[in-house]
Amino acid sequence: MLESFFSPKSVAVIGASHTHGKLGRIVFENFIHGGYRGRVYPINPNPVPIDGIGVYPSVKKLPEKADLAVIVTPAKAVPSLLKECAEAGIKSIVIISSGFSEIGKAGKELEDECKKIMEKNKLQIMGPNCLGVYDSASRVDTLFIGQSRLGRPKEGGIAFISQSGAVGATMLDWLNDQDIGISKFMSYGNGIGVNEADLLEYVADDPKTKVIVSYIEGLKSDGVRFMEAAKRAAKKKPVIVLKAGKTDKGTAAVASHTGSIAGSAKVYSAAFKQSGLIEATDWTELFDIARAFASQPLPAGNKLLIVTDGGGFGVMAADEADKRGIELKEPSERMRNTLKAAMPSYVSLHNPIDLTGDVVTERYELAMEEGMKEYDGIVVIAIFQVPLLDKNVASSIAAIANKHRKPVLCCSAGGEFTKNIVRELEDRGVPVYLTPERAVRVFDAMLEYSKSMQ
Amino acid sequence: MLESFFSPKSVAVIGASHTHGKLGRIVFENFIHGGYRGRVYPINPNPVPIDGIGVYPSVKKLPEKADLAVIVTPAKAVPSLLKECAEAGIKSIVIISSGFSEIGKAGKELEDECKKIMEKNKLQIMGPNCLGVYDSASRVDTLFIGQSRLGRPKEGGIAFISQSGAVGATMLDWLNDQDIGISKFMSYGNGIGVNEADLLEYVADDPKTKVIVSYIEGLKSDGVRFMEAAKRAAKKKPVIVLKAGKTDKGTAAVASHTGSIAGSAKVYSAAFKQSGLIEATDWTELFDIARAFASQPLPAGNKLLIVTDGGGFGVMAADEADKRGIELKEPSERMRNTLKAAMPSYVSLHNPIDLTGDVVTERYELAMEEGMKEYDGIVVIAIFQVPLLDKNVASSIAAIANKHRKPVLCCSAGGEFTKNIVRELEDRGVPVYLTPERAVRVFDAMLEYSKSMQ
Repeated sequence: MLESFFSPKSVAVIGASHTHGKLGRIVFENFIHGGYRGRVYPINPNPVPIDGIGVYPSVKKLPEKADLAVIVTPAKAVPSLLKECAEAGIKSIVIISSGFSEIGKAGKELEDECKKIMEKNKLQIMGPNCLGVYDSASRVDTLFIGQSRLGRPKEGGIAFISQSGAVGATMLDWLNDQDIGISKFMSYGNGIGVNEADLLEYVADDPKTKVIVSYIEGLKSDGVRFMEAAKRAAKKKPVIVLKAGKTDKGTAAVASHTGSIAGSAKVYSAAFKQSGLIEATDWTELFDIARAFASQPLPAGNKLLIVTDGGGFGVMAADEADKRGIELKEPSERMRNTLKAAMPSYVSLHNPIDLTGDVVTERYELAMEEGMKEYDGIVVIAIFQVPLLDKNVASSIAAIANKHRKPVLCCSAGGEFTKNIVRELEDRGVPVYLTPERAVRVFDAMLEYSKSMQ
Repeated sequence: MLESFFSPKSVAVIGASHTHGKLGRIVFENFIHGGYRGRVYPINPNPVPIDGIGVYPSVKKLPEKADLAVIVTPAKAVPSLLKECAEAGIKSIVIISSGFSEIGKAGKELEDECKKIMEKNKLQIMGPNCLGVYDSASRVDTLFIGQSRLGRPKEGGIAFISQSGAVGATMLDWLNDQDIGISKFMSYGNGIGVNEADLLEYVADDPKTKVIVSYIEGLKSDGVRFMEAAKRAAKKKPVIVLKAGKTDKGTAAVASHTGSIAGSAKVYSAAFKQSGLIEATDWTELFDIARAFASQPLPAGNKLLIVTDGGGFGVMAADEADKRGIELKEPSERMRNTLKAAMPSYVSLHNPIDLTGDVVTERYELAMEEGMKEYDGIVVIAIFQVPLLDKNVASSIAAIANKHRKPVLCCSAGGEFTKNIVRELEDRGVPVYLTPERAVRVFDAMLEYSKSMQ
């Protein structure tokens, strides 16, 4: 039923503006210049065409019943516009406008009025006070910040549900910069209609979505409903959640930010865990974990091998694994003998395996191929800068990763030379992280989800 | 006395090679093409000039007593080369060569032989099995990885002491990529002569160094000597340390990596704390903290103000501050009234202050100027992508930061548009972090150091 928010055949932009730079103009331009292939109708009392496209005074005058209306007008106009939508038979509406419950009593009254109209007419509303929707395939894009300031990510397997428009938009821009793809972005703001539980259910069934990421300050749905939706979603695909407002001070900040009750961190964490959700500790971790789920198979067990050519980084990874209770079992006698026969004596054949600074690509290949026989996943921490590694190392690592149904997570840091190799690895589907700790943390998250599925 | 490692007037590169790509050639080229202005002497039994520069068969045949010798030869040649250095009166020697105690018994014997020669002749040796030195001002550069693979950072206030060459080199490349400057880099490897304690003492007195960063796996100096050096250094400037090998598994990995005894995490942490060192939890945090010390004044107290235009990020920062016991006191009545008079009613005048998504630069200016009157430092979490912020926001924030003797730490994430603003902020001396948690963590570290100095 939420389909019309993401793949509407026609869209009415109510408040599409004649003035460049106005929010209603930006949203309208997103549709007509951003790759959306449906029909777009600007709605404005002033009949002068906008960007050469004929303007309608009201949704009631449209030549068809639009699948979706996007309202970008001052708040006070919204109730009557909702009524017009209802009269025109438009059921799905994104209200971008702010000035509702988030600004206090007067706004709350206006919001309640909208709610009544929504309920009476069985409208489904996203918002108000939200960014709405960005769909990387249909190019529905209701974000009121232009592309010159805020990039839009390419297509990918991550669905991103964000209560906060500002947080969500910043992440979108960053995701695009990092060349990380998403399927859909949803910001539901005050959430008087569609809320996090509805969206979770929807993207859980979305075939383009492999993993769901959710940023939550406080719930708009009731707790029971949320947990049911979360449980169902987590059974279908991994759901990673970041909860802001966990401490007293943070909770107070949430109250003044969105008017939500942030609730106790422990209650939320327990509910997340019970529902099979994976909780991230900051926003970068959300996407660290999501990237792996979007590209790598789940580990079948907890036997992790760490392979590196930089001993110190191996130590950091071992520390993190130990802290998280991940077993770093030693290579078998057989594996050690195979590696010993093919490598110099000073290569360290424990776990981590340290291939040392004169490593060549073949050593990585052999260690990984042998590792795949007895481990459930591999973290590769490569110093690509060392003198004897050639550029083929990226395709070699990726080929081995893609051949076996076991997760491979990489770790690397450096300048242009290294970044080119990292880019190739990521293009070939192997996620790369900046620190050993982050790569191991991601393996742990995959393990957690894998266990919860058993 | 260590001066000759960093500012030698003449350098002998023993093992300078005629073959492109060999380690001895790379080190030699660093000196002659990397900006070093002293005299460079290639030492090689083959008298054919290298890169047009006359070759000497031995340091004993040099026209002068070189201030520094760098040995890049097979391990077995090192003892006799050390003797030649001693005979030629060269006191300071970097031994890049590996194949010593790190490879086992035979290497250990060779290393002991070198030690004896060192002690007998009162040589000061850095290494063996190390990267040696990079000095951003004198351009001494003994790193055996060419600049096409591994960037060298510009001049700056961070001295970086790394036990591991590989870890250190990777960080150098990353620092250069991030445009973060350093004063000196030192990798002492097996540390038979110069060790972490000596280097700490040296950079503590180095006028170009504002902050010291140290990566340690296990101590080469004895614990008492290290703690004394650390205490003395920390009284002069902030010292941030990352200790790898903290858990059982990590400690085992250290043993097989460098042969050091990594020791218990708790013992190390206690010793660090007692010595006034700041301990980082991963390598990115090392430089997060160092960047702030290199550019920002210390906070005089713990009153932190958080200013943002993205409520959600403010919540994350408040959570982190609360977790760390940093007081987020509310703005005074006076400050609230001043801001209220100049800003829309929906701006949230608590701490965090949420200037909201229609923020203009003037709101940031006013909030920061007023904040400076009653807070000890400000974390600014700016969503620069919002429609009404102009590009002057960077110079405005930096101007206020630089006018007052109080630390300002920024947080921002995004694509090209935002990265240009971030670059300007950093060029003007304001450090910018990717997440609110990291910015608050850095303030906490500054607070910790500030308190330890009282």
